[in-house]
Amino acid sequence: MRKPSAAPSDRTRLRRSHERGRYDRASLHAVLDATPLCHVGYLMDGKPAVTPTLHWREGDYVYWHGSSASRALRAAEGLDVCLTVTLLDGLVLARSAFHHSVNYRSAMLFGRASIVVDPDEKAEKLKNFVEAIVPDRWDSLRPMTAQEVKATTILSIPIDEASAKVREGGPIDDEDDYALPIWAGTVPFETVAGDPIPDPRNLAGVSVPDYLTGPRLERR
Amino acid sequence: MRKPSAAPSDRTRLRRSHERGRYDRASLHAVLDATPLCHVGYLMDGKPAVTPTLHWREGDYVYWHGSSASRALRAAEGLDVCLTVTLLDGLVLARSAFHHSVNYRSAMLFGRASIVVDPDEKAEKLKNFVEAIVPDRWDSLRPMTAQEVKATTILSIPIDEASAKVREGGPIDDEDDYALPIWAGTVPFETVAGDPIPDPRNLAGVSVPDYLTGPRLERR
Repeated sequence: MRKPSAAPSDRTRLRRSHERGRYDRASLHAVLDATPLCHVGYLMDGKPAVTPTLHWREGDYVYWHGSSASRALRAAEGLDVCLTVTLLDGLVLARSAFHHSVNYRSAMLFGRASIVVDPDEKAEKLKNFVEAIVPDRWDSLRPMTAQEVKATTILSIPIDEASAKVREGGPIDDEDDYALPIWAGTVPFETVAGDPIPDPRNLAGVSVPDYLTGPRLERR
Repeated sequence: MRKPSAAPSDRTRLRRSHERGRYDRASLHAVLDATPLCHVGYLMDGKPAVTPTLHWREGDYVYWHGSSASRALRAAEGLDVCLTVTLLDGLVLARSAFHHSVNYRSAMLFGRASIVVDPDEKAEKLKNFVEAIVPDRWDSLRPMTAQEVKATTILSIPIDEASAKVREGGPIDDEDDYALPIWAGTVPFETVAGDPIPDPRNLAGVSVPDYLTGPRLERR
């Protein structure tokens, strides 16, 4: 178990709207677990690049993966990255343009990307990844081959130098503007999982598994 | 009007799954216009940082804004950035873990961030921003003040060194695996705008404007 979240570092301490900042593990975990989509920033030939990818969390580490031939992964391995997760929860419509905003949850992690080397550990991580995205699916799949594990690179960073930022609630207007007859409020956004669409080549009699018909997959 | 999209540069040319790459303006515009959320990568003290923010497009330029005191904006101004927009459209569940995937649309733009200096141009851009997010709202708002314009910084990059990447459709499995009795298919994700939630301090008789009750705001 890593140390509990320390005081923010110089680069994780929020300056703008610092009252929205959260540095505790529970808040960070909640954002990281709310969507599988993250954006990883790294240097490519000395310049910033941002690649979208899927992440998963195990304890106090966040993982992402890709082809072992991936330029984005090779450019990140062993080097400083910034991994950011954001959920856009809605529009906040104020009485002035200036006070318009959005509701959101975000987490920003800084760290040096470590590669998972051991094939058995890689295989375990990949199982955890699939189970994180689609719980209970793993055991039904054609087993992974050693070649597939080899062809996959897994990187991770600790949830250590990290901050979350959350905005929720309605607009905050200038006091004088509340007297104006302008509609203000919020428009919430929600991401929902639709009905599963079967592959046309599914064998006859293979029906949608229970784990896809239960609670919504997307946890947003 | 800028030159039409050229051949991809070394860093925008897709290596992985290059058949998903699109370099034409229409494809890039479609992704950029599909959500207001982007992630901007820049260097902070020589290390990569990724900040989520809202963007809007005007012709062949993409804009984003923030407080003039924003560290993220000051760190980007005049320097190389990477602006990435991603929509996660669904899960692609294959018969092997290895061929699991997601459907998505993404756009990645590289460029040097320019600041909008002229106050009148800034004011016009901010109007365009609000209108891009909530069409027809601008005219109902308390007018922007010169101080509010001054307190806002706007950056832009051209849609020039850029690529889009799109995955759609069902799983692609190893040929042998199609004989297995495993459910395969996709689970589509959709982001929807909920009913507007009025601010408790709205004046009596101020009802939800038509532009919030018509077609869905979220264009995803």
